[in-house]
Amino acid sequence: MPDPELAAWLRLTLVPGLGGQTLRKLLSEFGLPSRALAAGRAALARSVGEALAGRILATDDQATAVAAALRWADAPGHAVITLADREYPPRLLEIADPPAVLYVDGRTDLLSRPSLAIVGSRNATPQGIANATSFARAFSEAGLTIVSGLALGIDAAAHRGALDGEGATVAVLGSGVDVAYPARNADLHRAIAARGALVSEFPLGTPAIGGNFPRRNRLISGLARGVLVVEAALASGSLITARLAAEQGRDVFAIPGSIHSPLSKGCHALIKDGAKLVESAQDVLGELGLPAPARTVAQSSPEVAHELLAHLGYDPCNVDTLCQRSGLTPDTVSAMLLQLELEGRVASLPGGRYQRIA
Amino acid sequence: MPDPELAAWLRLTLVPGLGGQTLRKLLSEFGLPSRALAAGRAALARSVGEALAGRILATDDQATAVAAALRWADAPGHAVITLADREYPPRLLEIADPPAVLYVDGRTDLLSRPSLAIVGSRNATPQGIANATSFARAFSEAGLTIVSGLALGIDAAAHRGALDGEGATVAVLGSGVDVAYPARNADLHRAIAARGALVSEFPLGTPAIGGNFPRRNRLISGLARGVLVVEAALASGSLITARLAAEQGRDVFAIPGSIHSPLSKGCHALIKDGAKLVESAQDVLGELGLPAPARTVAQSSPEVAHELLAHLGYDPCNVDTLCQRSGLTPDTVSAMLLQLELEGRVASLPGGRYQRIA
Repeated sequence: MPDPELAAWLRLTLVPGLGGQTLRKLLSEFGLPSRALAAGRAALARSVGEALAGRILATDDQATAVAAALRWADAPGHAVITLADREYPPRLLEIADPPAVLYVDGRTDLLSRPSLAIVGSRNATPQGIANATSFARAFSEAGLTIVSGLALGIDAAAHRGALDGEGATVAVLGSGVDVAYPARNADLHRAIAARGALVSEFPLGTPAIGGNFPRRNRLISGLARGVLVVEAALASGSLITARLAAEQGRDVFAIPGSIHSPLSKGCHALIKDGAKLVESAQDVLGELGLPAPARTVAQSSPEVAHELLAHLGYDPCNVDTLCQRSGLTPDTVSAMLLQLELEGRVASLPGGRYQRIA
Repeated sequence: MPDPELAAWLRLTLVPGLGGQTLRKLLSEFGLPSRALAAGRAALARSVGEALAGRILATDDQATAVAAALRWADAPGHAVITLADREYPPRLLEIADPPAVLYVDGRTDLLSRPSLAIVGSRNATPQGIANATSFARAFSEAGLTIVSGLALGIDAAAHRGALDGEGATVAVLGSGVDVAYPARNADLHRAIAARGALVSEFPLGTPAIGGNFPRRNRLISGLARGVLVVEAALASGSLITARLAAEQGRDVFAIPGSIHSPLSKGCHALIKDGAKLVESAQDVLGELGLPAPARTVAQSSPEVAHELLAHLGYDPCNVDTLCQRSGLTPDTVSAMLLQLELEGRVASLPGGRYQRIA
């Protein structure tokens, strides 16, 4: 049974040329979308002009798309959340241009949970990927939902790290929520729909076009309490997201790197502008007033972690070799390595290798 | 012909157990050292106690050392500067505990010129050494005197970079100015005496003992307008120098690096505490209100620098190979590489190789 009010919201957002600002004007003058649609052409025209009033009332133009969206929303795990819904994420109401509707594939509850955005370059270095993964996992284990943009590189690594941890992650798309873009992240798209949430303000089927991404970026920072930039070039989308975040009053965090790495220049520029330099997950958690994650492995078996350090030695070594040397399972070794990495005692290197540094 | 007033200064500073604070007390009560020495035992005892008054007046104890210091000061290029001299560096008068005398081997004028301190780890990485050298060279070419501590690692690289440039550098020693320590820097010790200045507040012949270095560090920052920390571990002497610098009202600058490098943790801690993140010499010059160095090479022949980039390619390459490929002299190639490095277009690698990065 379709919800007539939801149909009215969808119809308004699908009118060509009717942007967020005009839609909010209609809402403030007429109340709910159904009342705007019932107000008559003359009243609409006085509010938004003749041309737009005509397009709003040309039902045939949007009827097919509205029906398809209602069918989509009816499927298990799908939802369309409007500005009038209780489920609408409160933090998005704080931003200058909150979307009228959000298409969600997955857990709508995640949109209102404490969350941190992690963004960065599509062409990240192996160390950047490793950092994004391990920070996301640590934040996830501390109870934060990880928000990112499902791009290649840092975004994908952040989502994967969150899924490795407690598993809560939200991907905000610059395409329709049903469009798996980029194709190389199709598996991740499915995994997030199943265990996290995919979110978009764009109508179903919207292709991933460049112009959508700056709009999308404001939602990544808008949904989160803060934004961590892992690696970013100067003049990159990640820097735009970070600057939008600062305008939205969100905390901005950045990981430093070599002054000779072009992918650290964006992070350094942010730190110069007042972003907080981050060396460990604890730096961010402390700033957000959150407790450190329960350090179950290290606390319950410090002697085993110590033994692992001895097995590791000072030469780079991978998890398989460490399992052989220690007799521990890969899961346990990985958890301990993460722990030791967060404590600054081992470094993760490209190629899944680890090295003792303290 | 020895200067009797200088002899009196030397005699007071050579009294065992007579520290800077007590010496300043004597100066404020009696005026010049010669007047303190002529005031009589009873007056001295009222000021500093019986025991110390006795030691001050026991001329025999200091006579040999005073005579030796006066002979040393008479040699070409040597000087002992007292708090009462016009040559005493004005910036040291701003600090809490200015030394009463400074032994100088080299150019005393450098002590009062605009200067920047560069400090860092003795166990620096090859990239840290390269950074210290190229930053020092750039500051030197911009007219700044480079102050450091003649330790191994970053200190030595900073002095060498300054000598590569316009050549003004000051080494502040934790030993007597005539003690070449560490032995591995003996050549640098000689080069700085010849072209820059070696400075110490410790009597001639004082060995390099650990306790002297914290005192020495306050002079490194005290002589400079700011301190740049290139690489430093947590809990290192460089961090102590940086914190003294902040207390003295000097600007503190730090170069970031990988969050997995123990030698970047000190720099990151300083940035978290408010030090300025530095990516290029220009970052520091701008903050100090100084113009950028004249970019003679790049400005006069941009097409040649561009050609050099083409010769460099994206694989690491040394200066000799570049000279062969380009037909340019080593000096010209080195100058262009420095220029390109400061512009962030090439990175210097360990072993004197360079790599194009932009």
